[in-house]
Amino acid sequence: MLTFSDYFSEKTSSENDNYLTDVFKSLKREMAEDKVGYYNLPKNSKKILTDLKLIDADRFSQVVIIGIGGSSLGIKAINSILKPINPDSKEMIFFENSDPITISENISKIDKEKACFFIISKSGSTIETTSIFKTLINHFNLELDNAKNIFAITDKDSSLSKFASFHNIKEFNIPLNVGGRFSVLSAVGIAPLYMAGYDVAAILDGADSFTDSFFRGDENHLLKKANYLYTNSKQKSINVVFSYADRLDNFTKWYVQLWGESLGKIDKEGNRVGLTPIGLIGSVDQHSFLQLIIEGPKDKIITFININNFQNSLSIPDISLKEIEKTDFINKTSFNTLINEQCKATMQSVTESGIGCDTITLDKISEHNIGAIIIYYELLTSLVGVMFNVNTYNQPGVELGKQILYKNLGKK
Amino acid sequence: MLTFSDYFSEKTSSENDNYLTDVFKSLKREMAEDKVGYYNLPKNSKKILTDLKLIDADRFSQVVIIGIGGSSLGIKAINSILKPINPDSKEMIFFENSDPITISENISKIDKEKACFFIISKSGSTIETTSIFKTLINHFNLELDNAKNIFAITDKDSSLSKFASFHNIKEFNIPLNVGGRFSVLSAVGIAPLYMAGYDVAAILDGADSFTDSFFRGDENHLLKKANYLYTNSKQKSINVVFSYADRLDNFTKWYVQLWGESLGKIDKEGNRVGLTPIGLIGSVDQHSFLQLIIEGPKDKIITFININNFQNSLSIPDISLKEIEKTDFINKTSFNTLINEQCKATMQSVTESGIGCDTITLDKISEHNIGAIIIYYELLTSLVGVMFNVNTYNQPGVELGKQILYKNLGKK
Repeated sequence: MLTFSDYFSEKTSSENDNYLTDVFKSLKREMAEDKVGYYNLPKNSKKILTDLKLIDADRFSQVVIIGIGGSSLGIKAINSILKPINPDSKEMIFFENSDPITISENISKIDKEKACFFIISKSGSTIETTSIFKTLINHFNLELDNAKNIFAITDKDSSLSKFASFHNIKEFNIPLNVGGRFSVLSAVGIAPLYMAGYDVAAILDGADSFTDSFFRGDENHLLKKANYLYTNSKQKSINVVFSYADRLDNFTKWYVQLWGESLGKIDKEGNRVGLTPIGLIGSVDQHSFLQLIIEGPKDKIITFININNFQNSLSIPDISLKEIEKTDFINKTSFNTLINEQCKATMQSVTESGIGCDTITLDKISEHNIGAIIIYYELLTSLVGVMFNVNTYNQPGVELGKQILYKNLGKK
Repeated sequence: MLTFSDYFSEKTSSENDNYLTDVFKSLKREMAEDKVGYYNLPKNSKKILTDLKLIDADRFSQVVIIGIGGSSLGIKAINSILKPINPDSKEMIFFENSDPITISENISKIDKEKACFFIISKSGSTIETTSIFKTLINHFNLELDNAKNIFAITDKDSSLSKFASFHNIKEFNIPLNVGGRFSVLSAVGIAPLYMAGYDVAAILDGADSFTDSFFRGDENHLLKKANYLYTNSKQKSINVVFSYADRLDNFTKWYVQLWGESLGKIDKEGNRVGLTPIGLIGSVDQHSFLQLIIEGPKDKIITFININNFQNSLSIPDISLKEIEKTDFINKTSFNTLINEQCKATMQSVTESGIGCDTITLDKISEHNIGAIIIYYELLTSLVGVMFNVNTYNQPGVELGKQILYKNLGKK
């Protein structure tokens, strides 16, 4: 279960109700007209499971992912969060960056006989992904024809799709109306996470419940939050997600892509708009970034995420250290309590400093909760995208760099 | 060797020369008056080596760090960067956060007979650090009196220092005029990195050369950059460090603390000032944050960091994949070349979009270069701190949260 609270410093007026209804209707229309496909993924992706159950997953003990951006961030986020409650899940190895040291190190971790390889690219020709795939084919002497240990996830009719057909490699498609950074609940996330041993049906159920509830009109806090973020976007252009759990680190990276790349746009009137996402981890970043939040320019809005029950009972032992007795007051407290009390205290210090914030509490780490929080952030992004009057689902700004790269590397 | 270039969109006028000279003199004065101690660490910390050489380091194969913020970020940064060229260095295990899952996982990695434990806290009573230390004492039944496997790093006369004296535990001190986030070149970084097998003398040499050069007046580009960042701080309040190497990830986290916590302040006239630091990794974040940089609000200045020579020859094999032949133009290119070309192309796309940026190129991964880039960023921080008219070296904003925590946890 997710619980939401907000402590926004400026209240949004009720005059906005009609406006918010219009924004809500925009999303409903996008869904009805099948323009934006991710709204239906929680329901539609269950069909992938039928396909996946035909694969002999037990023969693999490693799941290798070759993908970058939207083709890896969501998978990493879910794997990181669910691993502690699924200790028997398979090792996942991620090849993303073109960093030669990482690629070499990752190669040394792979046992060819036990590994399955997912090559994931929406466009089918992402340069990092194809280059690394070639490197793995070469290094492990991978047999391509009828390969049972290689899977492709890509758009229908992409070059990668045609490659897979040519070699009779099992292929999963990303719906054409689902953008890369909104694709984690498509085959992109579902297939490799299933192979790794996660209960992906429960992830989809969590996402489905929240999506249904939202479109029924039962999640108005989301509209209110979108409106607060949008209304204050000029003065408070930085949105911090401060997560109190180490294993939410990859989730915050997924959020950074979703938020930054969806909203950082030239709007339909030619203005540069956008909100800058920052992911922090507590309590660690209380010792790093918090000072700037509290005393620096008031240009930030903070969302605290915490987990009520870590399902871990480790406690601070009742030991008194000579000369450090002043810390004894905390003895016998569980670390679960400590980290949540730190979140609460930091949140309170932020609100007392007059900085707008809200909280999302997961009652525990669960597949259901992860599904829900993913769709929560996707819906929030879509709402703010409508308010900004941008195309939330493209990324034209990254093309120039690609063209320069191809030119410099001598592509004809 | 480090090479610096800038492509700042607005030139700073030469009228500022006198002003910059004054700022430069402020730092010289801080050094001469011994107000700010980190300027002298590259020279002074060499004395710690004499002490360290008396320890039988060979008996340990794991170095456990218990510290948070300034007591861990710098050590992690250097360890991450230097590990690939020091494959025989010892495993370092970091206990930072109060996250119970991480603490439990880290405990399971420790072999008590082979591990040495560094407890690091400038104040001596950091709540995460003392709580975790108690947990380790309890779990491993650590003998405290005359312990040869425990080391304390703290301020002279702190509670932790008195604790160490009481038990006859070897102690290293942080100079009182060196703040936590400026302390990596003090015993905080030098002692554990030495124990892990790194050539800390070479790190200090690199830092020393750059410091000398700066105070001789030979690094004027640093003054110019500080001035550019300060002059544009209202409109361009976000400073992105975009590093093209996975192993610079922890370096960017160290930078985020240094920059955010030093400059995010109420200035001497009562204004909230500061610059928001963001760390990105290329090429990965080209698929995440770049869109926002290129098309979003022009509120960012970007610094690209790249490494000329990764000392790794992994290349894209000369394989043509059926239907993906369009990627063949890149075959036979090394990943070392690819990642640097990606950095160059992204930098060019950023400048062509009219966004100010500069580059720092490390000719290779080396102890010398890491020492130099650390002191480079510390000096840059001090310069901008003078310009902002803030106390660069304190962090009053984090106290409120601590007080609330202590009250809620029942401290008398």
